[in-house]
Amino acid sequence: MVALLRFGALLFAVAACQAWHVDEANVPNLVDSPYGSLWPLPQKLQTSPVAFGLNSASFQIVHAEQSSAGPNCYLLQNAFRRYFEYMFGFTKSKGMYKRKVGSEVSELQVWITSSDPECDGFPSVTSDESYELTVDQPSAVLKAGKVWGALRGLETFSQLVYEDGYGARHINKTAIQDFPRFAHRGILLDSSRHFLPIKVILANLEAMAMNKYNVFHWHIVDDHSFPYMSPSFPDLSQKGSYHPYTHVYTPSDVKMVIEFARMRGIRVVSEFDTPGHTLSWGKGQMGLLTPCYAGDTPTGTFGPVNPILNATYEFMAQFFKEISEVFPDAYVHLGGDEVDFTCWKSNPDIKKFMDQQGFGQDYSKLESYYIQKILDIVAETNKGYMVWQEVFDNGVKLKPDTVVEVWIGYKMEEELQNVTAAGYTTILSAPWYLDYISYGQDWQKYYKIKPDTLVQVWKGNVQKYQKEMALVTAAGFQTLLSSPWYLNRISYGQDWQQIYKADPYDFDGTEEQKKRVVGGEACLWGEYVDATNLSPRLWPRASAVAERLWSDKSVTNIDDAYSRLVQHRCRMVQRGIPAEPLFVGYCDHEYKGL
Amino acid sequence: MVALLRFGALLFAVAACQAWHVDEANVPNLVDSPYGSLWPLPQKLQTSPVAFGLNSASFQIVHAEQSSAGPNCYLLQNAFRRYFEYMFGFTKSKGMYKRKVGSEVSELQVWITSSDPECDGFPSVTSDESYELTVDQPSAVLKAGKVWGALRGLETFSQLVYEDGYGARHINKTAIQDFPRFAHRGILLDSSRHFLPIKVILANLEAMAMNKYNVFHWHIVDDHSFPYMSPSFPDLSQKGSYHPYTHVYTPSDVKMVIEFARMRGIRVVSEFDTPGHTLSWGKGQMGLLTPCYAGDTPTGTFGPVNPILNATYEFMAQFFKEISEVFPDAYVHLGGDEVDFTCWKSNPDIKKFMDQQGFGQDYSKLESYYIQKILDIVAETNKGYMVWQEVFDNGVKLKPDTVVEVWIGYKMEEELQNVTAAGYTTILSAPWYLDYISYGQDWQKYYKIKPDTLVQVWKGNVQKYQKEMALVTAAGFQTLLSSPWYLNRISYGQDWQQIYKADPYDFDGTEEQKKRVVGGEACLWGEYVDATNLSPRLWPRASAVAERLWSDKSVTNIDDAYSRLVQHRCRMVQRGIPAEPLFVGYCDHEYKGL
Repeated sequence: MVALLRFGALLFAVAACQAWHVDEANVPNLVDSPYGSLWPLPQKLQTSPVAFGLNSASFQIVHAEQSSAGPNCYLLQNAFRRYFEYMFGFTKSKGMYKRKVGSEVSELQVWITSSDPECDGFPSVTSDESYELTVDQPSAVLKAGKVWGALRGLETFSQLVYEDGYGARHINKTAIQDFPRFAHRGILLDSSRHFLPIKVILANLEAMAMNKYNVFHWHIVDDHSFPYMSPSFPDLSQKGSYHPYTHVYTPSDVKMVIEFARMRGIRVVSEFDTPGHTLSWGKGQMGLLTPCYAGDTPTGTFGPVNPILNATYEFMAQFFKEISEVFPDAYVHLGGDEVDFTCWKSNPDIKKFMDQQGFGQDYSKLESYYIQKILDIVAETNKGYMVWQEVFDNGVKLKPDTVVEVWIGYKMEEELQNVTAAGYTTILSAPWYLDYISYGQDWQKYYKIKPDTLVQVWKGNVQKYQKEMALVTAAGFQTLLSSPWYLNRISYGQDWQQIYKADPYDFDGTEEQKKRVVGGEACLWGEYVDATNLSPRLWPRASAVAERLWSDKSVTNIDDAYSRLVQHRCRMVQRGIPAEPLFVGYCDHEYKGL
Repeated sequence: MVALLRFGALLFAVAACQAWHVDEANVPNLVDSPYGSLWPLPQKLQTSPVAFGLNSASFQIVHAEQSSAGPNCYLLQNAFRRYFEYMFGFTKSKGMYKRKVGSEVSELQVWITSSDPECDGFPSVTSDESYELTVDQPSAVLKAGKVWGALRGLETFSQLVYEDGYGARHINKTAIQDFPRFAHRGILLDSSRHFLPIKVILANLEAMAMNKYNVFHWHIVDDHSFPYMSPSFPDLSQKGSYHPYTHVYTPSDVKMVIEFARMRGIRVVSEFDTPGHTLSWGKGQMGLLTPCYAGDTPTGTFGPVNPILNATYEFMAQFFKEISEVFPDAYVHLGGDEVDFTCWKSNPDIKKFMDQQGFGQDYSKLESYYIQKILDIVAETNKGYMVWQEVFDNGVKLKPDTVVEVWIGYKMEEELQNVTAAGYTTILSAPWYLDYISYGQDWQKYYKIKPDTLVQVWKGNVQKYQKEMALVTAAGFQTLLSSPWYLNRISYGQDWQQIYKADPYDFDGTEEQKKRVVGGEACLWGEYVDATNLSPRLWPRASAVAERLWSDKSVTNIDDAYSRLVQHRCRMVQRGIPAEPLFVGYCDHEYKGL
């Protein structure tokens, strides 16, 4: 007992209240990174100590003479304005105050090398985002095959600019060759569980561009509300949204989001998840959902989409035809996850249909039957489709260009193996569910335990749990080790590290299989997220995913990453994004909002 | 090993997915609360279905004729303006549009009954916050002994006002007698780990008033930075803050915070925590901290305040004299927690001193020696003091009016017993560390696990884990119970429920002992909190603590609380506080910021 009390004493010394000692054990070291504040880290980089000045009064971003793009490439013109403002703010210092600096970079030439810069095009999974950036005097040169690479290079250039103590801006002699490791680098936002004002969505697109993300996966509708205003079926939002005027996205809103995203090289992939997650659809589309029964009598409640009616498929055909026209992206996400069979099982008509089809009691066959028809309908619109992994798991016949999204964490590796072995393209989101957040005290798990208690050790990093095992066993407890499997749950506020360590190649497979993993997504589901907390919940943790998906696989030094990310987070804050802090400290320009 | 691996698989299952079904299992039911949106719930309440109109063009908040307070009671004048704006906004509808409503409440008479309303006074732990509110036509009457009760009553009145579909405001016939269950209802903010701009502190004081909080515990300095600008010792912030101009609180800032708080009946209790948590003090006050040694040579690093030098106590005497003048509150918090003895043990002079004093190897004796002197110094200034529980645990001699703050969760009950048995006043913060947040999923943990797997049950409340154990064992799994030790950790985003269920009387003690528990505090430590995320991290979870500390002990119905809190949270959002959502849904007036 005395031993226990001592043990307790020892534990609370390491404990809650000002829990910073606990945290610090877990916090990386701030180092002087050779890569400054670059995030995500470019693929190839040569820097030099030679620094040049940048004069806001004279500095220009211009189209290179040889460039295939010019002033009428509005996408680039917008980007020039955006990055000039990031680097110099809105004021232009007066000529009279111009002071002679030594050697300086007086212009950034943007040179689009291919015959078609794609100024008016939409980004796609095959878009060329590579670029070469040479910073020297008197001119810096940014070479890219397409505008998409130029956008990435402009972000990089802006990240190379730094201020000295006098506020004078400098940039070092640098040569960069850069390209993304993965073609699909996405963020999922959920505008159904809570409505997200356009303003919040646009701010998030800004932040995505700062992190070289290129896909906005818009989980726009779900059980809880249907904010998408459909010209063909206005009742869907009229009756299915939280409010038919204030909580909907009009066609103009959607157009604006798509154009705002295009300007930043970001695809907008809309998700209309069926047959589950569709309760809100039923309010505006009578007969679409399956009536649930108690015995022989309808309960008045509804289940998934009713898969046995022609009317269902006529509706879906017309609906997805509209979607294929409203959203220019080559892909639409069809969901297909988490179908609850309870209601289908209760419905006598469905039972009859199951018999006719010879599905027996296997309702996943019915699910597949439905999904198959939806896929064919969407294929008709000449769109490719993305689906959640269950669709593949249930053995639905998929087009070769289908993208399967792997989200179930506990069997992630197995799933990546199977999907890629079957020859399908896949993206990974399992390790990156950023609506989950964990920052807790651990010491209470010893709260009044008897010495024969089995103590589970689950601290968040290897060094830590080894120390812990020693500590616990020394104190005479039995112990069970689970840390390695808790890694992406417990984090004392340092979640970003586990997020950062996860890799889409974390499975055994051939080179061919690995090639089929085209990227990943950070998902922010909306149960507990709305305009009040979205940005700090998502950023900078999503930045950790961004580097994993853009930079080389070998970029894994936590201290270096932490040191760059701290600066990158402050840069996002300075640009108006309320990205939350990574640990104690401050930014030169703190957040000014509330 | 195989079993362990399976266990691993099962734990991985805890890793990702649209976990909303789980959440819903955990989310209370929205009911039509008889108490509308009142938060915290008043002690005695009679409502009636009879509703009166409120006309913004004619409605007035006035001093009752018999009131001892009048127009020169600026505290009330400020409050009248504030609550008029909350209820009616800033616009005044034009007379021409005035429409005849039926019976209406045309004025709220505020009647201060005691001879001294305390308009220009400061609130204290003994301030009378009770009030009586009668809503009837043509006049509503708010009776209170002092302005402090009037402030609480005005908040309650504003919470009774509601709009109908036409936007017309109504208030029902109501009679309320109200008073706080606990006299000390505090929020701790930490402005050392991250600097909190004045704007953020003031917004938080606004939110506190909306929740009838009455103590702002300002943990103003700590190891990481010293933002308090001391006129007597300017070097402390000059050298110890993150930045000597942008990251400091000037005397004017402090005055403003104190007055802004006073206007809302909120005390400002400053904490200057010693002898630990003082690294930042050392930068501006040479010789204050203990030099650490490796063998015979100083390492150049420093430990806690050096307790063996007269200079230390001369400094502290002068410093706390200043603090006692700058902060009008009758109490100052002296900290005294988490003193790490390592550095003291390494220092030869301290070892010598220990021998001279006959302390042997017991460094807690040295700690007590130091604290004793500090307490005497502060007593000299005629202030009372608050301390963290270690000071009591170490047997330091305390003035009878000392307030001991209990923060260590695992021995909370025992500590409350001991402190109150010893006759000391205490406040509780252990269950309310709101910087901790946890949102993960649990449902997948049974997903495809082998029967011989060891399943750990860690659901977040007693009823739940008992059900869970039954479920798991029935399913033929072995199980390990850890819930009691996980209680305030796992919460699926529903942390507020555990926060709400904790009670300062959760210990065995006599009536006398219970009386000595004067309240509690919600603490928001700053490791991971700054202006970007403070408000949503704190609110509405701190509202759960607010009701526990104000309302009767019997107010524990989770469904009713949830239903009122959802509305209260939306009201805070409408008033400009980015309080985060409790679950899926929407507010009539969503947050407009970013």
